[in-house]
Order: sequence, then C-alpha cells, then structure tokens
Amino acid sequence: MVTTVIQHVLNRLRDLGIRHVFGVPGDYAFPVDDAVIAHPDIQWMGNCNELNAAYCADGYARVHGMGAVSTTYGVGELSAINGIAGAYTEHLPVFHLVGMPKMPVQARHALVHHTLGNGEFDLFQRMSDPVVCASAIMTPQNVAAETERLIAAAIYHRRPVYLAFPADLAELPVASEAPELPAPASDPAQLDAAVAAVADRLRHAGSACLLPGALAVRAGLGRHLQRLVDASGLPFATMVADKGVLDEDQPGFVGMYDGKLMNEDVRRLVEDGDVVVLVGALMHDFNSGAFTANLDPARTVDIRHHHVQVGAMTYPSVEMRDLLTALAARLPTRTWPRPSAGVVRMRSEPGSGDDPLTAGTLYPRWERFLRPRDIVVAETGTCSMGMAFARLPYGATFENQTLWGSIGWATPAAVGAAVAAGPDRRVVLITGEGSHQLTAQEISQFGRYRLRPVVFVLNNSGYLIERLLCKHPDLAYNDLARWHYAELPRVLGCEDWFTARVSTCAELDRALDTARHASTGCYIEVLTDSHAAPPLATRMHENLGSLYAG
Amino acid sequence: MVTTVIQHVLNRLRDLGIRHVFGVPGDYAFPVDDAVIAHPDIQWMGNCNELNAAYCADGYARVHGMGAVSTTYGVGELSAINGIAGAYTEHLPVFHLVGMPKMPVQARHALVHHTLGNGEFDLFQRMSDPVVCASAIMTPQNVAAETERLIAAAIYHRRPVYLAFPADLAELPVASEAPELPAPASDPAQLDAAVAAVADRLRHAGSACLLPGALAVRAGLGRHLQRLVDASGLPFATMVADKGVLDEDQPGFVGMYDGKLMNEDVRRLVEDGDVVVLVGALMHDFNSGAFTANLDPARTVDIRHHHVQVGAMTYPSVEMRDLLTALAARLPTRTWPRPSAGVVRMRSEPGSGDDPLTAGTLYPRWERFLRPRDIVVAETGTCSMGMAFARLPYGATFENQTLWGSIGWATPAAVGAAVAAGPDRRVVLITGEGSHQLTAQEISQFGRYRLRPVVFVLNNSGYLIERLLCKHPDLAYNDLARWHYAELPRVLGCEDWFTARVSTCAELDRALDTARHASTGCYIEVLTDSHAAPPLATRMHENLGSLYAG
Repeated sequence: MVTTVIQHVLNRLRDLGIRHVFGVPGDYAFPVDDAVIAHPDIQWMGNCNELNAAYCADGYARVHGMGAVSTTYGVGELSAINGIAGAYTEHLPVFHLVGMPKMPVQARHALVHHTLGNGEFDLFQRMSDPVVCASAIMTPQNVAAETERLIAAAIYHRRPVYLAFPADLAELPVASEAPELPAPASDPAQLDAAVAAVADRLRHAGSACLLPGALAVRAGLGRHLQRLVDASGLPFATMVADKGVLDEDQPGFVGMYDGKLMNEDVRRLVEDGDVVVLVGALMHDFNSGAFTANLDPARTVDIRHHHVQVGAMTYPSVEMRDLLTALAARLPTRTWPRPSAGVVRMRSEPGSGDDPLTAGTLYPRWERFLRPRDIVVAETGTCSMGMAFARLPYGATFENQTLWGSIGWATPAAVGAAVAAGPDRRVVLITGEGSHQLTAQEISQFGRYRLRPVVFVLNNSGYLIERLLCKHPDLAYNDLARWHYAELPRVLGCEDWFTARVSTCAELDRALDTARHASTGCYIEVLTDSHAAPPLATRMHENLGSLYAG
Repeated sequence: MVTTVIQHVLNRLRDLGIRHVFGVPGDYAFPVDDAVIAHPDIQWMGNCNELNAAYCADGYARVHGMGAVSTTYGVGELSAINGIAGAYTEHLPVFHLVGMPKMPVQARHALVHHTLGNGEFDLFQRMSDPVVCASAIMTPQNVAAETERLIAAAIYHRRPVYLAFPADLAELPVASEAPELPAPASDPAQLDAAVAAVADRLRHAGSACLLPGALAVRAGLGRHLQRLVDASGLPFATMVADKGVLDEDQPGFVGMYDGKLMNEDVRRLVEDGDVVVLVGALMHDFNSGAFTANLDPARTVDIRHHHVQVGAMTYPSVEMRDLLTALAARLPTRTWPRPSAGVVRMRSEPGSGDDPLTAGTLYPRWERFLRPRDIVVAETGTCSMGMAFARLPYGATFENQTLWGSIGWATPAAVGAAVAAGPDRRVVLITGEGSHQLTAQEISQFGRYRLRPVVFVLNNSGYLIERLLCKHPDLAYNDLARWHYAELPRVLGCEDWFTARVSTCAELDRALDTARHASTGCYIEVLTDSHAAPPLATRMHENLGSLYAG
C-alpha cells in the first residue's frame, strides 16, 4: 500500500512517540486533518482555538518530549504563532503542521480566502521563521529527506519546526526515500578535555553547587543529571524556571536560588562557592531574582545541550548527555558543604475558620495538597512566584513559562499535559484569574476528553503581578471583567466536576479535602485580597530598578 | 506643558477621531497603558486577550473608520497578529501600539522575559511587517514625522500600521515637529481621462450594472457612491463581502450577485450587460460564487482607491473620491434595464409551534428581526452565507470577514462595533457556535462596558461549513466540546441579560419578541439540525471543484 506525504510525516511522528495531534480543522488543512483522523496510532484532539492548541502541544511536549499541532493556512497558523514562539523560547520540540492551498492556486496568485488578498502565499511561512528552528513545504519529492531534516533539527535545537502541506500534494504517494539522521555526537577529544576540566575544577574546590536547568529535562536528561548528583554528592539549588528538574525531596537539595531576593544561605553557597555548575539553566530576568544573581564567570561551569563553558574556556561539540554520563562515572563521591539551616520552608501562617486567604495561609495549603508525581502547571504571575517556594513531593514536576511569560499559557498547557500524562499522573493547574481569562474556554477539553485535573483559579480581582510592577496598583487597566469562575466548568461541559468558590481558610480546607478524594475533575476558585502577594512578588516590586535595568 | 512621545501619538489618534484603545496591559507597555488611561479624550478598553483586542479594534474601525489596539512586547503582539492580518486583508486602518523593553536592554541583548532568549529584539516587528502597511519604533527625535508618515500610510492603504514604544523613550518629551501630510490627490489629467472613459462607456451602453464594494465604505465614500447611484440611475447588485455598502432598501438594488450559484437574473444583468462598474469590490473566491462569476474584462470598469481600470486601460493616480464625485456630476440620469422579477427574497418557510428551526424557517425570522440602522456582524460560515440573502432595512450595515475568514472574529468585532456605535445603533451578532468557541470570553466586555447587543449563537453541533467542504460531513474533527451557551453571559458577567435557548419556531418567535423590546443585552442560542444549511452553503458544497480549482 502506498504511503502519502502526510501519512509519511505522521508515521515518523508516531515513531517518535507522538500519539496526539492538537488543532483546529480548516479547509486547506483537510488532508492533514483527514490523515490524523485515519491514523491508527494517532488521535485528533480538537481545540477551541489555535493559540490554545499550540499551548496544548507545548504542555504535551513538556510531559512527552515532543508535541504536534495542526492549523489551517493563514488565519490558523498566525493565531497559533505566539504559542509556537513560547515553545521556541522554552525549548519544546513542537511540530506545527499547516495546511496550504493547492500549488496551482498559489502559482496563479489566486484571490482566495485565508490570504492577504495580495496573491502572495509564502508570507506566513516567513512570519513563522523566527520562532521555529526549521521549516519546509512538503512535496512527494522532498518529504522523506525534509522530514528527517526537520526531526533532526527539532531534536538538536529542542525547538518547534514548521511543516506546510499544499492540499494537492499531501495525499500523493511519497516519491523518495531518506535515512534517519544520526543523533548528534560529541567530538571525543573535546569531550575528554571538557570532562577533565570540570573534574579538575571540582577536585580543587572546597565548596561547589549545581544549578539544574530545564534544558536538561527538555533533552530527556533528567535521569542523567540525577545520576551525576548521586555519584558526586554535589548539593544543588534550583531557580524558578527550573523547579522540579531534580527532585526536591532528596538530601542534595538546598533550596531555591533567586539571586539576592529570597534566601541568603542559598545565595552564598551558589555565588560564593568555588564552583557553580549550571546544567541547562538560563540566567534570565525572572530566573535570576531580577538580575540580582551574581555568578562569577571564572568560577562557573555552564553545561549546554551541545557545548560547555568552563570559566573562560569553551568546549564545542560536547553533548550534554555524554558529559553528564562521563562526569557521573569520573567524579568521586564527596561530602560537600551545605547551609547549616537546611532547606527553608515557605512562610506559613496556619489560619483557620473564617480567616481570610492570604499568601501566608494559601500557598502552604497548596503545598500540602500536592502529592508524589503530580504535574503542577503554574501560570506566569504571582501564583507561580508563590508556588516556586513550595516543596515538591517526590516525582512531582513543575511546569511554568518563566522566560516567554505569555499569560494564558497555563490553562491549555495543563490540558496538553493531562493528555500526555494519562490517568496515572494528576495534573494540578494553578492560575490567576486574569491569565485564565485569556484561554479559559479550553477547560472544556478536560470534560470532552474525560481528563480529571485539579484546577485552582486565584481570583484576586485583577492582574496582581501588574499591580506590583506598574506605577500605581489601582490603575484601571489592571481590572478585569467579573466572572463567576466556579460556574465555568459546568457551562463548558465539565458536567460532573467538583467545583467550589472559597474565601476563607475553612472553606479552602474543605474544598481541598474533597478534591483530594475526588474521582472527577475539580475546579476551585480561590478568592483573596487584591494585594495578597507572595514574598517573591513583593521582592520584585521592591527591585524594579534591577528588573528593568536600562 | 511638554508632550511625551506616547502622548503625541495619542493626541494625533484623538485628532483622527479615535476615542478608545483596546488591549491587554503588560509591563513593557505600561508607558502606553498609563498614557491611555490618563488621556482626557481616550478610554482604555480592557480585553480578555490580545487576539480579541485586535478583533475589537477591527470592529471599531468598521464603524468608526479607524481603530487602535495596544499590546505588550512579544507575547502580546504575536497573539494579536492574526487580528492585525485580518484588518490588513479587510482594509481597516488599525493602529497597533506595542510596548518594548528599554533601548539599553535591547542594546546589550539582555535575557529578559517576552523575548525568545536569543538577545534579538527586532524579530517581532519583522514578523508583523507583512500584515501592516508601515511600521516604526518611536523615539523623541522621530515621533513627529513618523506619526504623520504612519497616519498617511494607514489612510492611503486603509491598512494597519505598527508603532513600537521603547519603555525608556515613550515618556520623554517630543524633540521635533512635523506637519500633517496632505491627503492623496488625483492627477487632474488622469482623472479627466478616466471620467471621460467611464462616461463614454456608459453612454454607449444599452445595459449596465454597478457592483458596490466594501473598499468604498472603507475609504469613507459610502455617500459618494450613493450620490453616483442617485445621479446615474444605475442599478446595482451586491456581493456577499460588500453587503450593506449601499442600502438594499432602494429602487436601484436588483439583488445579490454570487456568480452562477444563486440568482440567474442578477447574474445575467451583471455578466451579460454592456458595462459593469466595480467600485472597490474584489472578486475573491467566496465573493464570486466559488469563482463561478465571469466578468468580461473588456466590459468592466474597476474603480479602486487610487486608480481605475476601464477595459484594458489603466488610469493611475485617480482617487476614488474624485472619480465618484466627477461621475455623479457628469453622468446623465437614465432609466436602465433591470430584471423584471424584482429583487428575489430569501426562500421562506413559515413554520410555527413545534416546527424545527431550519434554514427556511430561521433566516427569514432573523431577516424580519432586523431594524433600520442595525449593525449586523456576521461570522464566517454558514450563518453569514444565510444572512447575506436577507434584505437589510434602511441604514443597516452588514459586517463580515469574507476574504480573511478567520473564525472567531465576529464575537469580539461585535464588541468593538458596539463601542464605536454607541447607544444609538443596535449591534446584532450572528455566529455559529464553533466560531464562537474561539473567542467567546469576550462577551464579558459587553457586560463590563454596559453594551446591549443582540447575540445569536447558531448551535448546529459542529462546524457546519466544514462538514459541507470536507470529505465526509461526519468526520470527528468537525465536532466540538458541548457547551451550555445560553448560560455563558451570566457566568461571564452579563448579569441582567435576556438569554434563551430555542429549538422550535414558537420558541424562537417568543425569544425574538422579547429581544425586540429588551432594554438589556440579549443572547439567544438557536439549535438546529447539524446539517441545516442555507442555500449558498449548499451551493458551495456542490461547487467544490471551482472553489478549490487548481
């Protein structure tokens, strides 16, 4: 039986483990949509809109390693483009499958719908170029080789790729063959030199600390990193964008590192030690305590996907996987100095009865609610700044979008994560209500696809993080339309969910108890004062100068 | 008192009549947001998300001539980009005000949020380039001249423009001056020659017909076009994208023209007459009966914003305004031939009691519901294909997005139209439920800003237009999550609205009666069979070959 262009691509995505394609159908994309529906191993996951679909693919890729989203030409792909940009920034390989008009329609510059009316058909691919690492228009002649090129690029860069399918070509038989491209390999001499350099640094160090980074997990190297920690005994601190990369429920964890803003003991270990080893960790503004972090380059080892920097020396063509494996084998186990205070827990006020929910009463309750292997999806804003200092239980992961920071991401990303995780792992979505409003309709897919997350919507009457960052907290642009959030799930088709709206400690405690044992999805609207900010958000407010340094 | 960069721009937008800026705030955009809030003549209109904000600005510009939307850097502007592309395609001048990081932050390629993490800061402006007619980064030195250049471009092209404001420059005083640029003027010789050529054609014509186009209204020339019709007595037919450009409640109207698909009498007048005069009307796929329209170029006069084509001759540098004015003065009034049957009304089945709602019972009811000066916002899909054949009462307009065709557009566009129209004109939104799901949260702004539209959501259990265009109507990608639509307004803060869910003729009649006299917003979910398609949609299904010709 012949394989068509689109079938070939889907088969290769299936080989990579992709089992779901998110998206919104459209007429130019029907050949793609039809092929997804007909594929025996891949399921079509309909979304409310294309941005949400891209966020779903992002969330899926976080749990599953890769994701896929399909949109139609022009209107669909441009709606998704911010979600693709987020996946680019956060290093998530998402395959964006775009349906195009037929080639002869393009060739005669026809005035057809979903175009700008100027007869140009290559503009949208060009608009996507900055937010993907590779792109191609798939034909019977090139599909075999281009598919391998795009897969290799997505894996190498851990970034999205763009695949366009002209409607008249997508269902033609593949007319060529191409071998899989080999996985990237280290240059043996560079690898040896890099291992020796890192080992040498650590041998002479009296104190050292590791900063595990999300890029390690993005490359599927979480276990390799854990083995390095186990072998070396290196203590580690975690930055907010990298939370959950290594289990926090282990002896090596010394706490969260956020420059000068939060924990002075941790800051001293990281910044004043003899060596700090970053493994796929990036020092961007919200990951570095508003640039208050101060790592001495001379004492820093910075391990990236394909190279490593040791002080002033760069070792190119060194694969993170190879380096972590070699270091785990080579480094002696040592007992390294660590802060005597142990890991500082988040500030907790017990609260009870009619006590209002504050940062001090709320975040510790959410912390205690988490259980092993939970997938916490935390929206940009004060709620992720609060939850970043919760202690995650064993195997729990923490997804956020610290660098791209597109509010609205978390709700659909939680849908994608839940699809990828299956019934064995619980997804806990924590979002502010301002962010939720951007993409809230997507909770309907939880109901449609019988997923059972726990959703917390922090309703503090506006964009709290913006109140803290702008000139005056009460400026009207920080206000929102008022919704009855707790009624949304039922109206959007999550009929059997447990929902609650809580504003006191006792009400939240009761709701959490129910949610703990619920066999359905749960949606809890949590009301706080409009200025109830967790400590990190308050620190940001106090450090606007360094945050926006210019 | 000094004027700042952003104040200067807002003042000039105010001079142009812009009284509202839609948007979502963000930290890099605070100087823009602050200035909008503080401006005495301009109101900040918060939206749920940026795509919706761009659609609002589109709807506002349709009623008001121009619109403005503000977003933050990266995440915000990219979310809005599909809405900007729609405004580009549909010729709507929308000013996109984008907040940027400070210049020194850009200069040192800092790793800050809302960037791709690659230190590049000009990528998003470049991504926007294909969907705007001009763009600039505003500084104290250039703001005076650049503002005039961008305004002139927006007016000349009737397209969006992009203005970025680095956060450190936006609040600095303007450091230069620049005069307003003159409105485009015709070349007198070309204009005379064009007028003579058109008049000559018509003088020798035994029959002729005019096709009024949306581009005439986009240039604010609706009345000029009406004067030409009044002076010349020319009959006119209207295409779906151009519906409502000229009043349908006047003797010159002969009916809707949609190639061979719908009305043979109208087709004959348009295609077989001696002259057909297009005034800002475009022959794109869904405007030409799936390319079944067949205009003989030799007998066609095609009047565009800045040139006119008469048969094989092009007259450049002829302003539509000047040409329409000159023709109205020059052409003699004649009695032109027209179809003897008169305007064909839409097929109507009376229906009553428990009769189900079908295309034959539903669309005529909506037609009768309309009243003079209504603004009908009709979503892409079967519902606009049905409503295109309703006879609009005097002064009513019909907004659709036939060429760009981005589903989801209509709901926020109706918000923007309602803001622009004020309390004197009623907005009637008609959308399918599949399209509504993309952007439904924006109805919360109706409640928040105390607007009182009438919203009809046609719930036919899926994407009906796609069922008609794809391989098999029952393919699962045409299905949707099931929502309780009629409950959405209350949950989203439209507390006092009249809402109803109707599936029979009697139920709809009762709901329409209530809506006719309601002093609140109204939201009526209309249930039909999943295949109840209006005639044009059925014709499209029967003409897939010509629609997708390639």
